[in-house]
Amino acid sequence: MNNQIHTPLLDQLLIHNKKQPVSFHVPGHKYGELFPGKGREFYQSLLKLDATELTDLDDLHSPEGVILKAQQLLSNLYQTSTSFFLVNGSTSGNLAMILATIEEDDIVLVQRNSHKSIMNGIRLANAQPIYLNPEYDSELMVASGVSLETIKAAIQSNPNAKALILTYPNYYGMVYNLKGIIELAHEHGIPVLVDEAHGVHFVVGDPFPPSAVSLGADVVVQSAHKTLPAMTMGAYLHFNSSIVSLEKLSEYLQVVQSSSPSYPIMASLDVARSYLGTFTKEDIQSLVKRINAFKTELERIDGLTVYSQSKQDPLKLVLRANGYSGFELQEIFERQGIFAELADPNNLLMVLPLYNEESTNGLIEAVAKIKEAMQGASSSSKHLEPTRLPKFEGQLVERLALSFKEMSKKERNFTSLSQAVGKICAESIIPYPPGIPLVLPGERVKKEHIKSLEYLLKIGAKIQGGERLKAGELKIFK
Amino acid sequence: MNNQIHTPLLDQLLIHNKKQPVSFHVPGHKYGELFPGKGREFYQSLLKLDATELTDLDDLHSPEGVILKAQQLLSNLYQTSTSFFLVNGSTSGNLAMILATIEEDDIVLVQRNSHKSIMNGIRLANAQPIYLNPEYDSELMVASGVSLETIKAAIQSNPNAKALILTYPNYYGMVYNLKGIIELAHEHGIPVLVDEAHGVHFVVGDPFPPSAVSLGADVVVQSAHKTLPAMTMGAYLHFNSSIVSLEKLSEYLQVVQSSSPSYPIMASLDVARSYLGTFTKEDIQSLVKRINAFKTELERIDGLTVYSQSKQDPLKLVLRANGYSGFELQEIFERQGIFAELADPNNLLMVLPLYNEESTNGLIEAVAKIKEAMQGASSSSKHLEPTRLPKFEGQLVERLALSFKEMSKKERNFTSLSQAVGKICAESIIPYPPGIPLVLPGERVKKEHIKSLEYLLKIGAKIQGGERLKAGELKIFK
Repeated sequence: MNNQIHTPLLDQLLIHNKKQPVSFHVPGHKYGELFPGKGREFYQSLLKLDATELTDLDDLHSPEGVILKAQQLLSNLYQTSTSFFLVNGSTSGNLAMILATIEEDDIVLVQRNSHKSIMNGIRLANAQPIYLNPEYDSELMVASGVSLETIKAAIQSNPNAKALILTYPNYYGMVYNLKGIIELAHEHGIPVLVDEAHGVHFVVGDPFPPSAVSLGADVVVQSAHKTLPAMTMGAYLHFNSSIVSLEKLSEYLQVVQSSSPSYPIMASLDVARSYLGTFTKEDIQSLVKRINAFKTELERIDGLTVYSQSKQDPLKLVLRANGYSGFELQEIFERQGIFAELADPNNLLMVLPLYNEESTNGLIEAVAKIKEAMQGASSSSKHLEPTRLPKFEGQLVERLALSFKEMSKKERNFTSLSQAVGKICAESIIPYPPGIPLVLPGERVKKEHIKSLEYLLKIGAKIQGGERLKAGELKIFK
Repeated sequence: MNNQIHTPLLDQLLIHNKKQPVSFHVPGHKYGELFPGKGREFYQSLLKLDATELTDLDDLHSPEGVILKAQQLLSNLYQTSTSFFLVNGSTSGNLAMILATIEEDDIVLVQRNSHKSIMNGIRLANAQPIYLNPEYDSELMVASGVSLETIKAAIQSNPNAKALILTYPNYYGMVYNLKGIIELAHEHGIPVLVDEAHGVHFVVGDPFPPSAVSLGADVVVQSAHKTLPAMTMGAYLHFNSSIVSLEKLSEYLQVVQSSSPSYPIMASLDVARSYLGTFTKEDIQSLVKRINAFKTELERIDGLTVYSQSKQDPLKLVLRANGYSGFELQEIFERQGIFAELADPNNLLMVLPLYNEESTNGLIEAVAKIKEAMQGASSSSKHLEPTRLPKFEGQLVERLALSFKEMSKKERNFTSLSQAVGKICAESIIPYPPGIPLVLPGERVKKEHIKSLEYLLKIGAKIQGGERLKAGELKIFK
């Protein structure tokens, strides 16, 4: 356990830097020697570690030295068979685990409110997705996880499914009975692939929920950058399966990631793993204390309500303000320089810092700013009444109206949003964050889709996809 | 032209940083506030720019603000229809341009000595590759480009080819008559996709070769990080086509890249583009002068020879030393802290810094160290005689022995290297660098493959793939 303090990859980069090496290799900035003007003061120190696959610096795609050691320490921490550093985000882990597990035409059971990278992986694999609709949490008014019953039914109708793909936790840190689900799937020989992007820190233990890794999932992907001190795009993939092929997984990881992975990102993954691996009981106590004090202070602020559930990640904080939508609350906070993670029609989601005992507690100053923000808000002009987005009704288990093959042959055209209901959608519409597709190619457009879309467009939410959405049109199949 | 000094993305990050924003969002280091011990001094300043898709910071996957502006400046510089920043290397650009252009079963003409990401893209697309074997440069003893004649023949036999994929320049900065080839391909309605990973700086102009963009290629991918002051994994993709679908390209770029692209990488792409865009004639003169002086000094060193060709990128320098293999020369240099880019059995390849007039000239000190290195070498113990690797003979236009579909159904096993000749290979064997597959799944194993492989294993070259290569075995189809 105590060897978790080691950071073999970072250490080797520091050793290399000490040699004052002369670079006649890529990258072109030559350890920061060549970096023009304005950004120099920000870039120069880290560029000293922006090396390439030199002797002693190993190779992510064929690790034998310090990267192998670093990955082994990661594997030790999570107690997996093999673990990998990823440099192209959970996106790359999701793509790779899906491509490694399912083949063309395979039936795959997938949680409908999954990240777009899951949907993309299934499409690249040319598989047949069966969508499992999630439960609806009426308190937070968001989609949560898929129930055991839904999965039972899905497996019953699709006994030859080749994979079950779930997201745990959801964006709001909410969990569910994943253990029971994994056991059920395994009874049927179905591997379980989990997007645990928001749960990399769960391995710390109580009061954090258990990690999908410990619950028996076959492959688990985590965005280290979301809650750990790792650089954006840094992620982990954990392999712990007797069903999925490690060799295929390893191959696909090399397909979906740059052949020149970033050493600064990789070294930060090493540091982040060490941070987690040396997180003590005292660190947890200190962190919980600070979070609770923060919540207490926030609850004292007029107009602000804090929502938290027992089965939720304590690092995720959900706020509401009477008479304001989550988007408006987000704007109110930003005026005081407080930036939250995600807004939805009702809530504002904050991701708290994973402080250890030594960390400086910045939450106290934040309280004062948030108080100021709320005071400023009450005196501002009249605002929009928050809209309750339609709860999606329908079957719990659904297929696409067209297969990927059928879609590739069909013609497309554009239609106005109002005319689109009942047609088959031909593009992905993805509000970002959270990056979960609102509607997918091959899905039949529902009234509720259009209602949600119109609302999101009205409040100026960011949407990816939607080629002519700004002109009020949706791409559909003829 | 003078607006090339602007860096809208970097600027906005600096503005945001000045606000001293309080982060309740990802990433978990909270602008570097939470970054443990050892690496802190290296990471802290750049982490201040490691933001996420906040208001005003735009979104790479749906750019409307500063990222759009930055990409437009890139497009202006290269005079393209549309240009993109990439955060997952040329790898992601290659995958996306291939997936956007070719469909399942399409015939695609592809240069055999392409980067593995090109081969992977074709496989993901489930297309049918026709390999075009390159010419052999007998001076440098490396594979160069594909001849116009070979392409003529390939198009004649495959008039319904849906794409022609080429690499320009090769790793050694060597170019060829790409213009003639593009014109020929376009006469037949075949789009030309170019991996210009090693040529991002060509746009500066003479004495650099012309960029594939200016020669009429449909889509061009460039590793900005290789020769510009951009962070590793930063790349560009240029679209300038009336055949390839921009919409599909845009979609696939979102598929193969993290949904949380790195702002430090993106901002460095902005800086790098500005560096190129403000490179004056005086900068070029100064650079050429320094390079020539460097070459002259190196040629004075006993035992060292400098190879350069007229049609070669002046930023690439090839060295040889009598009686030493490129690998041994690499080691000799490293003992003095000089790190080259790539070694092959005969050569050592150096990538020179793209100095402008203001840059401090580090080449002078390097000369002294290289001199010392060579002196140290002559007194060292007896070394291996450099091996001339077999030149591959065979047809200029070749197909795989098995299609991807056939391969997915066939069983595999392992055989010793000597027994592998004549069998169909079932794995990729990729010496890295340069990342060009020595042998691909579906290719029939030749004597020369095994000879090269045995040599590379003997001298300890890094190889990706090859599941049991260390045990002297190759995976083949039964």
